[in-house]
Amino acid sequence: MKEIKKIGILTGGGDCPGLNAVIRGVTKSAISRHGWEVIGIADGFEGLVEPKGRIRELTLWTIRGILHEGGTILGTSNRGNPFNYKSIVNGKEKVIDVSKVAIRNVEKLGLDCVVIIGGDGTLSIALEFYKRGINVIGIPKTIDNDIMATDYTFGFQTAVVTATEALDKLHSTAESHHRAMVIEVMGRYAGWIAIESGLAGGADCILIPEIPYDINKLAEKLNSRSAAGSKFSLIVVAEGAKPVDGDISVLKGSDKGFGIERLGGAGNRIATEISELTGMESRVTVLGHVQRGGSPCSFDRILSTKFGVAATELIAKNRFGEMVCLHNNKISSIPITDAINSLKLVEPDGDLVRTAESIGISFGR
Amino acid sequence: MKEIKKIGILTGGGDCPGLNAVIRGVTKSAISRHGWEVIGIADGFEGLVEPKGRIRELTLWTIRGILHEGGTILGTSNRGNPFNYKSIVNGKEKVIDVSKVAIRNVEKLGLDCVVIIGGDGTLSIALEFYKRGINVIGIPKTIDNDIMATDYTFGFQTAVVTATEALDKLHSTAESHHRAMVIEVMGRYAGWIAIESGLAGGADCILIPEIPYDINKLAEKLNSRSAAGSKFSLIVVAEGAKPVDGDISVLKGSDKGFGIERLGGAGNRIATEISELTGMESRVTVLGHVQRGGSPCSFDRILSTKFGVAATELIAKNRFGEMVCLHNNKISSIPITDAINSLKLVEPDGDLVRTAESIGISFGR
Amino acid sequence: MKEIKKIGILTGGGDCPGLNAVIRGVTKSAISRHGWEVIGIADGFEGLVEPKGRIRELTLWTIRGILHEGGTILGTSNRGNPFNYKSIVNGKEKVIDVSKVAIRNVEKLGLDCVVIIGGDGTLSIALEFYKRGINVIGIPKTIDNDIMATDYTFGFQTAVVTATEALDKLHSTAESHHRAMVIEVMGRYAGWIAIESGLAGGADCILIPEIPYDINKLAEKLNSRSAAGSKFSLIVVAEGAKPVDGDISVLKGSDKGFGIERLGGAGNRIATEISELTGMESRVTVLGHVQRGGSPCSFDRILSTKFGVAATELIAKNRFGEMVCLHNNKISSIPITDAINSLKLVEPDGDLVRTAESIGISFGR
Amino acid sequence: MKEIKKIGILTGGGDCPGLNAVIRGVTKSAISRHGWEVIGIADGFEGLVEPKGRIRELTLWTIRGILHEGGTILGTSNRGNPFNYKSIVNGKEKVIDVSKVAIRNVEKLGLDCVVIIGGDGTLSIALEFYKRGINVIGIPKTIDNDIMATDYTFGFQTAVVTATEALDKLHSTAESHHRAMVIEVMGRYAGWIAIESGLAGGADCILIPEIPYDINKLAEKLNSRSAAGSKFSLIVVAEGAKPVDGDISVLKGSDKGFGIERLGGAGNRIATEISELTGMESRVTVLGHVQRGGSPCSFDRILSTKFGVAATELIAKNRFGEMVCLHNNKISSIPITDAINSLKLVEPDGDLVRTAESIGISFGR
Repeated sequence: MKEIKKIGILTGGGDCPGLNAVIRGVTKSAISRHGWEVIGIADGFEGLVEPKGRIRELTLWTIRGILHEGGTILGTSNRGNPFNYKSIVNGKEKVIDVSKVAIRNVEKLGLDCVVIIGGDGTLSIALEFYKRGINVIGIPKTIDNDIMATDYTFGFQTAVVTATEALDKLHSTAESHHRAMVIEVMGRYAGWIAIESGLAGGADCILIPEIPYDINKLAEKLNSRSAAGSKFSLIVVAEGAKPVDGDISVLKGSDKGFGIERLGGAGNRIATEISELTGMESRVTVLGHVQRGGSPCSFDRILSTKFGVAATELIAKNRFGEMVCLHNNKISSIPITDAINSLKLVEPDGDLVRTAESIGISFGR
Repeated sequence: MKEIKKIGILTGGGDCPGLNAVIRGVTKSAISRHGWEVIGIADGFEGLVEPKGRIRELTLWTIRGILHEGGTILGTSNRGNPFNYKSIVNGKEKVIDVSKVAIRNVEKLGLDCVVIIGGDGTLSIALEFYKRGINVIGIPKTIDNDIMATDYTFGFQTAVVTATEALDKLHSTAESHHRAMVIEVMGRYAGWIAIESGLAGGADCILIPEIPYDINKLAEKLNSRSAAGSKFSLIVVAEGAKPVDGDISVLKGSDKGFGIERLGGAGNRIATEISELTGMESRVTVLGHVQRGGSPCSFDRILSTKFGVAATELIAKNRFGEMVCLHNNKISSIPITDAINSLKLVEPDGDLVRTAESIGISFGR
Repeated sequence: MKEIKKIGILTGGGDCPGLNAVIRGVTKSAISRHGWEVIGIADGFEGLVEPKGRIRELTLWTIRGILHEGGTILGTSNRGNPFNYKSIVNGKEKVIDVSKVAIRNVEKLGLDCVVIIGGDGTLSIALEFYKRGINVIGIPKTIDNDIMATDYTFGFQTAVVTATEALDKLHSTAESHHRAMVIEVMGRYAGWIAIESGLAGGADCILIPEIPYDINKLAEKLNSRSAAGSKFSLIVVAEGAKPVDGDISVLKGSDKGFGIERLGGAGNRIATEISELTGMESRVTVLGHVQRGGSPCSFDRILSTKFGVAATELIAKNRFGEMVCLHNNKISSIPITDAINSLKLVEPDGDLVRTAESIGISFGR
Repeated sequence: MKEIKKIGILTGGGDCPGLNAVIRGVTKSAISRHGWEVIGIADGFEGLVEPKGRIRELTLWTIRGILHEGGTILGTSNRGNPFNYKSIVNGKEKVIDVSKVAIRNVEKLGLDCVVIIGGDGTLSIALEFYKRGINVIGIPKTIDNDIMATDYTFGFQTAVVTATEALDKLHSTAESHHRAMVIEVMGRYAGWIAIESGLAGGADCILIPEIPYDINKLAEKLNSRSAAGSKFSLIVVAEGAKPVDGDISVLKGSDKGFGIERLGGAGNRIATEISELTGMESRVTVLGHVQRGGSPCSFDRILSTKFGVAATELIAKNRFGEMVCLHNNKISSIPITDAINSLKLVEPDGDLVRTAESIGISFGR
């Protein structure tokens, strides 16, 4: 059993409400309960490769007041994969493997373990480091809630709250006019934000990547609502929603975990098509990064704190290479190697879709 | 298999954000998916005993716009137990059994099933009717989240959000002064709201009924915080919090499901004791019924909708006498008889308490 | 002095949080204080031209619970100008003058006065009716706050709150990355929402129609922030923001009061230009109609209620042809003829801009 | 004209959302526009008397991210009057005049002016220092909005928003039961928070210090509502509400500006009396310090920023001894000596009360 004296924390990938709460949970538990020292590594893996000015001692004092703050006090990075690191060599941008530099820095810093908070891409890198002898513990992070190994990721519920609030507002404005209101929310591969906010916000139609939509079915739905006297409709569109006959690709390039962002969502396209097919006026709201920000909701603060504390418990037990997760409402863990590359999608015939269709919501199928 | 044509819905007991969302879920699903007629019975069981002016047809139109509304369009009642019904007989208040009147009214109304939304008390009555031949389906309801048979009840998360928002505000105000801020939240038997909002709101101490507190331990904690330079402390107190040596009873009489409300919470008492023991100024906030109101949060709207739809699925399958529930994040059901009289308490050594204590929160033990 | 017995209310133009609060204020005051009968006319002037199915008695009961509701229980209309009324004549859409029909309907309904809630276009129509002998009272309404005759219009503060909340969220997400976040808010001619939300939400740059921007000055500002270590910037863009050298017209056609909506805002264009000029990644949020919805904030509920009550006071005094307004925080009134066609713009050197520039916010000039 | 090089800021008295926004406004404007140095003095006047560990350089960096934060980064103090300073002399608490120490410290720190943010008490002290040769600029601060010299003080609107949100929640919960819900809000001398939140939150009765209430009139109102079928009522009570025949004093001792806090509000007393007189069940919510906390609303952030910037403009013009204020929606200033000791009360027959009574709200008169 390795005795722990000092641990590091870093976060990779996009923003997620709750990151600071995780950092706080790890730090408070490490210090108060275990008596360890805690180091924050800024700007993701970049901070391990080029640590100068990026190493911060985390104390009970430095983490004061961050529980309810969005963002992350540690920053993240876009060029963060040390195994494929964007560097300027002789004036040219090159991609090189600097993982050994990172490993040496972990040793220099005297870190007995590094807690790595991130999505699929970040955790894949964490796994590579673990294979090369670095003690790592993973904490899953994705606004999209699409990691198979955990019931929930923090930040997701906050994004649903944000999207639901926007839907509530569109609802009240739509009610006094005769329109189709389209709101585009996050979700390139998985429609969790769209289906949950759509259910919570009283949407009439929800388009998600998991259920390719037929634009004519959608138009039919809107027309039948009009005919029944409901002259407005609310349509929630996940940015990755795809038509059933679709060769339209909304995604270009790879986005495996390194922050390449959406290159154009489905909302505007669908609004235009609806107007053409139904003659209805349509309006579009693109929430964008608003969904990644803001104070985490109470659910996410609790989940983040649990994850942070659980990470220190795994460290104390030397269960390196594992990732904390929530399984049937209980905190648990799983080997990182089993957790990555396994996308959790909305089941086209699961509880959520069945519930939604039972109350008359159309998925355009 | 009984063919269903017409169902009724009633709600009993105290308010809970999400009640309207349940009513909407049942109604939309019953009409759109099953083609049934739906009747709303106002004022709880009172509406079954004295239906005059209390029977409302629920249509897709009448339930429009209620998803996000707090309260209940059906009202509830305080004298609602037909087996012990408060009546005025010859000018005197008497308690009589009018259950047969209620049963006759169910028949007169032609209801093939009655969906009964309520807590332990209401569901016990539902069970008695079921035993007497009435088809009932139960939907659990308690702001306190203390029904064993379900992971979550709707309304609870909304109450936690409300209490957390209050804590966030106290936090920022407390920070610039040197004080003990006490906030009393709901929870007579179970400390779920207190512990979840305390964790989410950055409380320093959380007092819950499940863990009797030692006021001296509490004072010690506050003093040690002062000594460390933190001159304010936030203390969340469940209304049913009890001292370890306690013969102080904050509860009088029975409150088994019939709306007898709290007769004085623990917040003021504890604030006074703290001031006496530590010399600190203290301030008290009593949230009261604010926690029972407001628009349900997105989580509760989804849960309510799922419960409502699931109730109609049980009806379609003739699984009368059952109650819908959430089990490991999946919608499920359980015989009402197994669901009642089984209080779900915060485990003194479970995930939540352990997480809280790991980050330095004191339970006064 | 004309004795009043019965009044009507109608709303025209786009949505505005607070419309229901105005309707409630008028109705409650008319009934409780003056003893008048109140009629709601649905769908704006359309309801006066084709009243069938559009006339609703407003009582203390029918307006219950609408104070905090967004939207309007009376609806509005897009083809609403009776002097230029879109009709289907012999199968063809024609524009005809049906004002006499409307006037006859006012008489048939026995209305001693019609309270007309709307913006510049709607109030111009109100004025025309007044000139033709109809007793009208105007209540100003515009989300953009750009009516000269009143310090504030209801709905505006709510829109500012909504935009500020979005900015707060972008702020926290932007902080952990290195980006330009662009948020497009309403305001085609006047930049009130942009400048108030920008000040309240901590924007770095605010682009408003009143101050044409130089995109190079904007880029300079972002670059100088980068150089100083602030790697993200928040840019609030009013949809009507214009470049200083600008022949780019974001507006097509006329929108004088009849609901022709924005045909493309400035947000996307500016984000693209910024990325090209600075090399920074940029992200865009288009709030759209979210700003017109939602529960009115407390400020707007009070203002709406004051306006509604003041309208009945003007009626009681037979001061027809006037419009209620807020002048130096006091409720007052002004002839409609003096109120219309007078746009209130952000003064390029007034309190707000000076305050903003003093704390380092750039307007791109 | 004195050339300014270095200024100080301190805040006195209770918490107010917007304090940090003021500090930010002063600092940003002083540095960016005027090129001055800025010093933050912690813990109010205590920081001037005993500056050790209480002097902080305020830079663009140290004030980052505080715009939306409640509380104050500078802290305040309870024993803060240097002219009557609580000290321990020879082991005994004594009250002595240490104003000369404070004056010497201002000189030692090289402060050309001190910006003093506070209420009546704090500003009176500021005036005394000014009379003794210290350059001061005042910024008015009171959650109660009861300073005559300014239309609004920051923090007030945020308190109204908080109280209105609580009322909205009580409203929805009350609607499904048959009760009197009493909510006690701040306001010992002035009923601004009570009347504005009562109007915005749909209260049925509002009790404020300016209009002594007759408990029988109140009971009458509740009974007449019951009789008309509205079985619940919402009563907003300012903590300083007084009965018309009242020798009941809810206030003990003096609270002139030095933080002596409320010793018991009117809410519980009134709830008990109502229950006795009407037989209705009643429930009480005591919001307490929740009203002083939280992120300032957009209105308050803008007002705070304007005040902060305006203070630096006064300094630049050497208009010492003045206080910034808002007059008819324009930023202005007034000699401190004219601003203090002049309470702005709700006019018993002004716009607000008249509006409220017109829509049927009772003040118990």
